[in-house]
Amino acid sequence: MANYSAPLRDMQFVLHELLGVEEILKSMPPHADMDGDTINAILEEGGKFCTDVLLPLNQVGDQEGCTYEGDGVVKTPTGFKEAYAQYVEAGWPALACDPEYGGQGLPIVVNNAIYEMLNSSNQAWTMYPGLSHGAYECLHEHGTPEQKKTYLAKLVSGEWTGTMCLTESHCGTDLGMLRSKAEPNGDGSYAISGTKIFISSGEHDMAENIVHLVLARLPDAPGGTKGISLFIVPKFLPTEAGEPGERNTVKCGSLEHKMGIHGNATCVINLDGARGWLVGQENRGLQAMFVMMNAARLGVGMQSLGLAEIACQNSISYAKDRLQMRALSGPKAPDKAADPIIVHPDVRRMLLTQKAYTEGARAFSYWIALEIDKALSHPDEAVRKDAADMVALLTPIIKAFITDNTFESTNLGMQVFGGHGFIAEWGMEQFVRDARINMIYEGTNTIQSLDLLGRKVLTDMGAKLMSFGQLIQAFAAGNQDKPEMAEFLAPLADIGDKVNKLTGEIGQKAMKNPEEVGAAAVPYLRVVGHMVYSYFWARMARIALDHQDGADAGFYKAKLATARFYFAKLLPETAYQIRAARAGADSLMALDAELF
Amino acid sequence: MANYSAPLRDMQFVLHELLGVEEILKSMPPHADMDGDTINAILEEGGKFCTDVLLPLNQVGDQEGCTYEGDGVVKTPTGFKEAYAQYVEAGWPALACDPEYGGQGLPIVVNNAIYEMLNSSNQAWTMYPGLSHGAYECLHEHGTPEQKKTYLAKLVSGEWTGTMCLTESHCGTDLGMLRSKAEPNGDGSYAISGTKIFISSGEHDMAENIVHLVLARLPDAPGGTKGISLFIVPKFLPTEAGEPGERNTVKCGSLEHKMGIHGNATCVINLDGARGWLVGQENRGLQAMFVMMNAARLGVGMQSLGLAEIACQNSISYAKDRLQMRALSGPKAPDKAADPIIVHPDVRRMLLTQKAYTEGARAFSYWIALEIDKALSHPDEAVRKDAADMVALLTPIIKAFITDNTFESTNLGMQVFGGHGFIAEWGMEQFVRDARINMIYEGTNTIQSLDLLGRKVLTDMGAKLMSFGQLIQAFAAGNQDKPEMAEFLAPLADIGDKVNKLTGEIGQKAMKNPEEVGAAAVPYLRVVGHMVYSYFWARMARIALDHQDGADAGFYKAKLATARFYFAKLLPETAYQIRAARAGADSLMALDAELF
Repeated sequence: MANYSAPLRDMQFVLHELLGVEEILKSMPPHADMDGDTINAILEEGGKFCTDVLLPLNQVGDQEGCTYEGDGVVKTPTGFKEAYAQYVEAGWPALACDPEYGGQGLPIVVNNAIYEMLNSSNQAWTMYPGLSHGAYECLHEHGTPEQKKTYLAKLVSGEWTGTMCLTESHCGTDLGMLRSKAEPNGDGSYAISGTKIFISSGEHDMAENIVHLVLARLPDAPGGTKGISLFIVPKFLPTEAGEPGERNTVKCGSLEHKMGIHGNATCVINLDGARGWLVGQENRGLQAMFVMMNAARLGVGMQSLGLAEIACQNSISYAKDRLQMRALSGPKAPDKAADPIIVHPDVRRMLLTQKAYTEGARAFSYWIALEIDKALSHPDEAVRKDAADMVALLTPIIKAFITDNTFESTNLGMQVFGGHGFIAEWGMEQFVRDARINMIYEGTNTIQSLDLLGRKVLTDMGAKLMSFGQLIQAFAAGNQDKPEMAEFLAPLADIGDKVNKLTGEIGQKAMKNPEEVGAAAVPYLRVVGHMVYSYFWARMARIALDHQDGADAGFYKAKLATARFYFAKLLPETAYQIRAARAGADSLMALDAELF
Repeated sequence: MANYSAPLRDMQFVLHELLGVEEILKSMPPHADMDGDTINAILEEGGKFCTDVLLPLNQVGDQEGCTYEGDGVVKTPTGFKEAYAQYVEAGWPALACDPEYGGQGLPIVVNNAIYEMLNSSNQAWTMYPGLSHGAYECLHEHGTPEQKKTYLAKLVSGEWTGTMCLTESHCGTDLGMLRSKAEPNGDGSYAISGTKIFISSGEHDMAENIVHLVLARLPDAPGGTKGISLFIVPKFLPTEAGEPGERNTVKCGSLEHKMGIHGNATCVINLDGARGWLVGQENRGLQAMFVMMNAARLGVGMQSLGLAEIACQNSISYAKDRLQMRALSGPKAPDKAADPIIVHPDVRRMLLTQKAYTEGARAFSYWIALEIDKALSHPDEAVRKDAADMVALLTPIIKAFITDNTFESTNLGMQVFGGHGFIAEWGMEQFVRDARINMIYEGTNTIQSLDLLGRKVLTDMGAKLMSFGQLIQAFAAGNQDKPEMAEFLAPLADIGDKVNKLTGEIGQKAMKNPEEVGAAAVPYLRVVGHMVYSYFWARMARIALDHQDGADAGFYKAKLATARFYFAKLLPETAYQIRAARAGADSLMALDAELF
């Protein structure tokens, strides 16, 4: 089984030394008295829950999976239900929720850090509370006062969980083709019918009620995405007293057998005239659901950060223990039968790739979470808007870049284990299988790249992208005092220039041929992702350079070495991706479909 | 379930149009009367067996896996045994074996093509006859006349199967640490004791006997790799009549639970004073086993070619069927609810990547198989030696480049299916899981890259590599007549120059610091791999250009478009890998191991 210890030192480095969260949170009234020690105490407590309760269930969940027991009943793996009860008892679901509904009102950035650890220890389990939190956010923003009264406190406490029911068998990406129907019952409720697939956490035995948020069409709704409405469809209809009452006709029909995340119930959900209530406006359901989808996309980024971290921890400790061959430059552990494999350059390449991607993802994603806090809670409207723009721009990078890198990282972690990596017992191959879904769900990574290039960059002529460029310029200007920073500032400026040039070129080509956007999007996202990571690695390198001789020098030396590795060995991927993006659409579109 | 039809047209294209096998085989006495029609008939027959018998068992094997029934008994998945009986009955094991022992004496190149199809339909099953063939080759080269008499005919007929028992729990890559012992019994046999792990096809119910080839140490053997000897250890000791007699004390202790290839029994094998007989010379076991390992490395390449092909076939047909979204340039199937996803540029990128890697691997690996035929059967010693050198040089590229590319290809195939790709039912995720082991076993891909750069290139100052360069130059010289070839010849010459330059640079650095070899090896292998694929894609492009207007124009148009895609979108990966290789060892070696 894989081991895990919460990377508290590294989380604190990002929160306090890199981001200075305490100072920034002070500017937001709801979080003004949030102090660093409290944050650290919460993280420490969360880490214990993850290591003690969730981690031991991760392999159990993978091996047992969920069981469909007939008539809509689903049993989760041994221990899942009890762990969830402990989670609820400790008040974790309420952490970042509105105090009006029983929440603790903590900043998103702290919640994200907790989610990193939950996902490291058990992604499949974490999807149950994760989707609930998405449902909470959606209803908090779009629900009527009565809906909020009925549902929010139950979701905040964790007594009830939530789902998002979008996909149907013939439509995933293309929700405009959605067929589920909602007929008014005449009493303000609707009768909803249809079949949804791939519903994560769709049915289980962990909570007393499940709140499904379902997309469906009203009678005579326009076709396509403009005729989709959003409904609350509870598993048990709430009584007057707000407790679970009559069983609704929304039922799990079967479970999918999947490559990974076996502990999460991926359900076919049959709605057979189930009673539901409209959320938000008629035909505007997709917009309402987007609140949940954006939160979910950031959530997927945190899933992959979590998996990258645990894979990295385990491959590093294996590489220090496993003895095999001698270093090419001569024995390093002459008293042993062979050297530990961490002496070998290519093993180090694999470990450092994992480290650079994991720590880069943590810096980037915590920073984005803090931008979300700003967008929600900053008193200055201009700051809120700028932060919201930054979040909109970078959400597809959080989703796609982190999940792609984590798939590579978990595979490298497995490769470090050699043949043992392929064996279930060691736990490494599960991380690869679990990580794989993150590149697909909540919008495939291709969809993310189209969102970035087509919707976030080209539609405003790169204005949001330029705001990020200004961060880079400001950082470069502020670090001219330190000659040792030149090795990081030069490639950072270079990748910034290259992104600008590439964006302009694609924009020009796209005006003549819209397929050029689709042809360039995936490599473009990787180039922009590397620009973002270059920025954060340069910032981390500066802090590390300033602390090379202090009490915790080893920590900073490792940070600096990882930064140097990132710039030397990973950033150069952009040389490939820029060429691929510039090669354009011709070689993709030339061949007739029937000749494939 | 995934579908499969044997890619006979493409196989014939490579065999006849690209390689001209009939003509080349004529120069080899054992194969002089091998004609093209016979080859095609064998492939067609083999394809039927694969589609009709093996393919339906692939998912069964994955779902059931093998079962350990206690006391060394292993049950293979439903249908495996019967399929093997059919395989033996039809004489397939004997295809490329020596007629002296009942073989049909066909060329390796034909056998390889058959193995491609076997692996497409069922890699886990194919590993049973695959390892037997390796054992056959090892005993054929190193066995005593008596050993050959006892074992070869049984392996050739397929009545008995074989294994290779190398790995122990503390040593995989580093066989010098091997501990299994062999004590002389005084009657010419040895008593062999130890525990082997990861023994593929190590125990099963498909054949009446299993011939284990086991590495162990004689008493007082020198330490390290120079004290290892090879032994035949049969499951049942052959009687005088050559039939299975007394049960030997070599037993399966348990089965591993793995990420993929569930249908193959990966065994812990306990040897408890088991009777065995020395193969080859004392303490020279590793050299004898290398015959089997080299064959196995080529075999792993064929496993990955097979998986790439079936994944590609299925994602192409899904992309033609699945309706989702409209083309960015306007509807392409206005009569349907949406366009088939093959209209989208990034879906095409994924499909064309699969096509380019699959067809490139087929051209390259069939060509190598023909070089092996030359090395074995050509009357001219100089030709034999040159061919053997070429095989030695390129074996690590067959193993590592094809398996890395296939892992990417199977993942892309899965990604084309979106959420459905993650669901077991569709079969795509199994290809990813099965393909993953190919990057690990028979020498990890890091070991392959060290073999290429350290052992095959730098030790002879690039002489073997230059022979491949001469092929490129000859091809370029021979194609100056065709102006349309310029778009392929220019990048081919360019990558050739870059490989030369890079090789020289690394060689220089390695003289000062041997860690530079380890630091550069993995990216170096990818650069050389792309040089090889560029050569074969340029050759295929020439044939396609010459047939753009003929009867089968569509086939050649697809080939040409795929060649153009390869040069535009995949070859540029070398821009990254060259930078990564040149970045050298510093950023890898700087960090103290304990600071990781």
